[in-house]
Amino acid sequence: MGVRERHRRERELRRRAILEAAKEVFLEKGFEASRMEDIAERCELGKGTLYFYFRSKEDLYLALLQEGVNELFGRIEKKLEEGGEVEEVLRRVGEEFWNFYEDNKAFFRLFVFGRRRLSFIPEELGRSNVERGMRYLQRFSELLEKGIEKGTFKKDDPWKLALLCWALMMGALFLYDDDIHRSMMKLSSKELKEAILEFCLRGLKA
Amino acid sequence: MGVRERHRRERELRRRAILEAAKEVFLEKGFEASRMEDIAERCELGKGTLYFYFRSKEDLYLALLQEGVNELFGRIEKKLEEGGEVEEVLRRVGEEFWNFYEDNKAFFRLFVFGRRRLSFIPEELGRSNVERGMRYLQRFSELLEKGIEKGTFKKDDPWKLALLCWALMMGALFLYDDDIHRSMMKLSSKELKEAILEFCLRGLKA
Repeated sequence: MGVRERHRRERELRRRAILEAAKEVFLEKGFEASRMEDIAERCELGKGTLYFYFRSKEDLYLALLQEGVNELFGRIEKKLEEGGEVEEVLRRVGEEFWNFYEDNKAFFRLFVFGRRRLSFIPEELGRSNVERGMRYLQRFSELLEKGIEKGTFKKDDPWKLALLCWALMMGALFLYDDDIHRSMMKLSSKELKEAILEFCLRGLKA
Repeated sequence: MGVRERHRRERELRRRAILEAAKEVFLEKGFEASRMEDIAERCELGKGTLYFYFRSKEDLYLALLQEGVNELFGRIEKKLEEGGEVEEVLRRVGEEFWNFYEDNKAFFRLFVFGRRRLSFIPEELGRSNVERGMRYLQRFSELLEKGIEKGTFKKDDPWKLALLCWALMMGALFLYDDDIHRSMMKLSSKELKEAILEFCLRGLKA
C-alpha cells in the first residue's frame, strides 16, 4: 500500500468517525443544541480538524441524511432485484425496510420523524429524495399490478395499494419508535413486522 | 347578564384569541423561535396582558396540546357512543379521525408529528395522553373482537388488528401532511380516507 493510498484510507476513517460522532450528538442533544465542539470532543479530534472535513454542523447533518437515504434505497434495490414470486418479493422488501429501521434508528429519528422542522435542508434535496422514494413505490406498485394480473391480488388501483402498504409501514414505525407507545403495544419488533406484512398481504389478496 | 358574567366571558374570549395566535405563530416560526412578543403582537394585546393569561410560551404550548387531545378524544368518544353494526362504527370512527386531522392540521404538525423534540413536556403528561389513546384503542379492539365473534371478521388477535388499523391511519396522515409527499400521491383527501377505511376492512374481513 502506497503512502497516497494510506492517506486516503486514513481520511476516510476519520470522516467516518466524525459522522458517527455527529449522529450520536445530534440524537442526544437535538440538532439545534449541538455544537461542532461537542462533536469534535466526541470523536477526540480538534475543532480545526473537524472543519477540514465538514464546513458546518448543517453540512454534517446533510451528509448523514444522504448516507442514510442511499443505504435505504440500496438495500431495497437489492431485494427487488432478487426477483421471485410477487408475494415473496413484497415480503422481502417489507422485511428489509423494517430491518433497515432496526439497524438505523438514529436515521429515522433524525431525518424521517424529525426532519420537517429544519429549514436549512435545501428544498431540492428534500424533493429529490421523495422523488427517489416515489420511484421505488412505483416499482412496488408494478409488482402489485403483476399480482393483480395473475389473479393473486384483488382488482384495484395498484398505486393506491402501494401507498397504503407504505403508509402502514411508516405509521407502525412512527408509533413503535416512540418509547411510551412501544411499551404499551405489547408486541415485539418481530411480531409487529410479521403483523404488518400479513395485514398487507391480506388486504391485497383476492 | 351581570357584570361578573360579562367579565368571565370576556376573559374566555381573550384566552381563546391568545391560544389561536400562539398556534399560528408556533406553526409559522417553529416553537423555539417563537417569542411571547410575537404572540402578543399577533392577537393585538400587550405583553403584560398575555402574561396575565399564560406564564410562558411553554404554558401556551401545553394548553394547546391538551385542548387538541381533549377535542380529538371527545369526537372519537361521541362516534363510538352512536353504536350500530361493528363495520359501521369502525368506518365512522376512522372517518372522524381523518376529519379531525382536516379540521386541526396545526395540532398534528405541532404536537403529533413534531412533538418528540420538546423536553419541557412533562413525562407524565405524555404518558397520560398515550394511555388515554390506548384506552380508545382497547375499545376499538373490543369492537373488532365482536366482529370476530360474529364471524364478520377473520379470527386473529383483535388488539394487534386494532394497532395495525391505527398505524395505517397515522402513517397515511404522516405522509399526507407533508407537502412534497402529498403532491406526489395523486390522491385527494377523500380518496385517501376512503382507501384507508377500505383497506382496513378488507384486511379484517373473514
